[in-house]
Amino acid sequence: MRIDYVKLTPVAIPDKPLLNCKGVHQPYALRTVIEIFCDDGTVGIGESYGSIKALEGLREAAPALVGLDPFHLNELKARILKALPNGGGINAKTAVADHKVTDVVYSAFEVPCLDIQGKAVGRPVVDLLGGPLRQEVPFSAYLFFKFAGHFGEDADDWGEVMSPDAMVGQARRFVSEHGFVSLKLKGGVLEPDLEIETMIKLREAFPHHPLRIDPNGGWTVETAIYIARKLEGILEYLEDPVIGMDAMAQVAAATSIPLATNMVVLEFDQIAEAVRKNAVKIVLSDHHYWGGMRASTHLAKLCETFDLGLSMHSNSHLGITLAAMTHVAAATPNLTYACDTHYPWTGVDIIEGAPFRFEDGSLTVPDKPGLGVSIDQEKLGKFAALYEVAGVSERNDTAYMQQFDPTYERRVPRW
Amino acid sequence: MRIDYVKLTPVAIPDKPLLNCKGVHQPYALRTVIEIFCDDGTVGIGESYGSIKALEGLREAAPALVGLDPFHLNELKARILKALPNGGGINAKTAVADHKVTDVVYSAFEVPCLDIQGKAVGRPVVDLLGGPLRQEVPFSAYLFFKFAGHFGEDADDWGEVMSPDAMVGQARRFVSEHGFVSLKLKGGVLEPDLEIETMIKLREAFPHHPLRIDPNGGWTVETAIYIARKLEGILEYLEDPVIGMDAMAQVAAATSIPLATNMVVLEFDQIAEAVRKNAVKIVLSDHHYWGGMRASTHLAKLCETFDLGLSMHSNSHLGITLAAMTHVAAATPNLTYACDTHYPWTGVDIIEGAPFRFEDGSLTVPDKPGLGVSIDQEKLGKFAALYEVAGVSERNDTAYMQQFDPTYERRVPRW
Ligand SMILES: [Mg+2]
Ligand SMILES: [Mg+2]
Repeated sequence: MRIDYVKLTPVAIPDKPLLNCKGVHQPYALRTVIEIFCDDGTVGIGESYGSIKALEGLREAAPALVGLDPFHLNELKARILKALPNGGGINAKTAVADHKVTDVVYSAFEVPCLDIQGKAVGRPVVDLLGGPLRQEVPFSAYLFFKFAGHFGEDADDWGEVMSPDAMVGQARRFVSEHGFVSLKLKGGVLEPDLEIETMIKLREAFPHHPLRIDPNGGWTVETAIYIARKLEGILEYLEDPVIGMDAMAQVAAATSIPLATNMVVLEFDQIAEAVRKNAVKIVLSDHHYWGGMRASTHLAKLCETFDLGLSMHSNSHLGITLAAMTHVAAATPNLTYACDTHYPWTGVDIIEGAPFRFEDGSLTVPDKPGLGVSIDQEKLGKFAALYEVAGVSERNDTAYMQQFDPTYERRVPRW
Repeated sequence: MRIDYVKLTPVAIPDKPLLNCKGVHQPYALRTVIEIFCDDGTVGIGESYGSIKALEGLREAAPALVGLDPFHLNELKARILKALPNGGGINAKTAVADHKVTDVVYSAFEVPCLDIQGKAVGRPVVDLLGGPLRQEVPFSAYLFFKFAGHFGEDADDWGEVMSPDAMVGQARRFVSEHGFVSLKLKGGVLEPDLEIETMIKLREAFPHHPLRIDPNGGWTVETAIYIARKLEGILEYLEDPVIGMDAMAQVAAATSIPLATNMVVLEFDQIAEAVRKNAVKIVLSDHHYWGGMRASTHLAKLCETFDLGLSMHSNSHLGITLAAMTHVAAATPNLTYACDTHYPWTGVDIIEGAPFRFEDGSLTVPDKPGLGVSIDQEKLGKFAALYEVAGVSERNDTAYMQQFDPTYERRVPRW
């Protein structure tokens, strides 16, 4: 069984005007859909970033896959390291949103290879990762402050959410529609006291739901410590309150709330420093940048070894990513936190049949061979066409925010 | 596909009177051969320790495997933790030669499950671990000081090796018969100056062969530092010169020779301390006690992450273990040292066909489905019968040494 060719399809999917400390989500989120065709007719699918840097890396490496045995993932890695400029060394870095191109590209191709392996074996991918430890994988609600609608457009059906009370309303809708238990707020948007008030009101409205807030490093150390003191006993964890390993360590030393991160520990090389400095207690895995689904199992063992907790990060994504996340999560013993997901925000998908539906905030692990999802080519065509007309090739939340507010400046930390 | 039943066969295999700092190898080394039978007729095989503690753990856990899907390795682990007394918690420890029973038992059953998986998929086990990075896996010669023959018996065909010059002769035979490149001496046997002389003479006789010495913690810190100073520039690495993490750290600080270990870091929980104390530079993996073949790939990633080198440990073993070691080694990118093996010393096997043969010190990765070896039931029966008559259920090198020398005492450190 050999790989014949690789098809890459960038897509644009409608997104909502969700706010974070660097701006607001543009009308379209970008993804790349990957199809790998084998000489025996098996097709493996995957999904990765849609930014032009990721897409270029994928395009450059794709020809190197021809002739590869899809079980030979170590060779896949070696071929990618060879194919990518400046990617020949294991430590060569070319930033794709701070991630190594080689890790991003390897992961993007590993998932379809595992999908192929699963189909060849007649097994769901989770069985290639050691088998399920849980049949239901819990996800968390991803709460965002948001504008009513996109620039120049009418309000969307979520409406404006720019106050603590409105956020409680958003959370109520997430909980009633999807049954989510853990609730995560994207913070760093409103001034600190309003975000503190938001968390306290969420706690009052949902006394038994674990709560998290993630300002993406939007606070100074002083602000972060001030906020942490107000939220002691309320938060499950506090994610990336500040920027940088030393700043995280300073905050960690000042609060009993565990700090989580997908900003200071996002590759294996950064774990040693984080451990040494006691900078974080919880690492967010994400197979898209940690180097694949198998590397995610390595990360899990590493976190167990160093007494670090493990959660799972998400970007705006489609159902192929969601399936892959669910397979990894089901096979990871120490993934004790509900996984992040942006899935409910986009509300569209390219997979055949109905989109995924959360039951009690959880997804059932797909049990069909491979990832257990397939592409609806008509839907794929539609969002590929949207990519062509969208005229966006790189995410830029700040630039889009400046359309709403020309005086807006990118400032991290902001508060 | 479900597991129907598990067959455990303890065997005794003839060994040579090889010396180490705790005594001398008894006439028989013990192993347990594992066969797992599935409802579709597939049989998976494995090999583990033969000590009574390991055997009892295997016997106690075996019934828990009935009905298990052999792809569900995470569930295998869960069932074993549940089945073993005091093994319900992940940190429950009952020593099998310092190893957790649960890790030993899990690994012993994981290998046959991976053998079954490979057979079900029509793939060598290496392909289930990411595929081969090398087709030839280098092993090292394992040099031992030895008595001429077993107690009360004539000299064996290796004869007495109790001097530096005799050891050079033993090394010449290993190199000419098997082509080994790396040469490892089991030290802590002769007085330090004689072992220094041995290494220097090996260097003179084999100017281009990497050299290692492993006294199993048989030296004091002072002796170890004295020896290390004499052997700077001569050794590839120095393995467990002293006992204990702090003592290792003291020696490490006093020499430029990298320290290796299978005594202070032999489970994941010990890595953090070793890193913090800079106690070792190289960790020896061994799927039998690190928790299986997949855990060995986690260990490899962990070593890469913390800039630790990786080598591979061996006990006296048969061809099933050798096949498993070769599959793991072939799939491990950063296994840059030749693997240890006792295989040439026993000289017998239970696998069908001819025993493994090293070419230029290396083995070719088996390419048949699964581990690529099968059991010769007649040979297995022979060594199982030997186990029954041997009257040994636990290794005890010290007691056997005392037959040769009634005044001998177990002392670690000895020198
Ligand atoms: Mg985050
Ligand atoms: Mg050793």
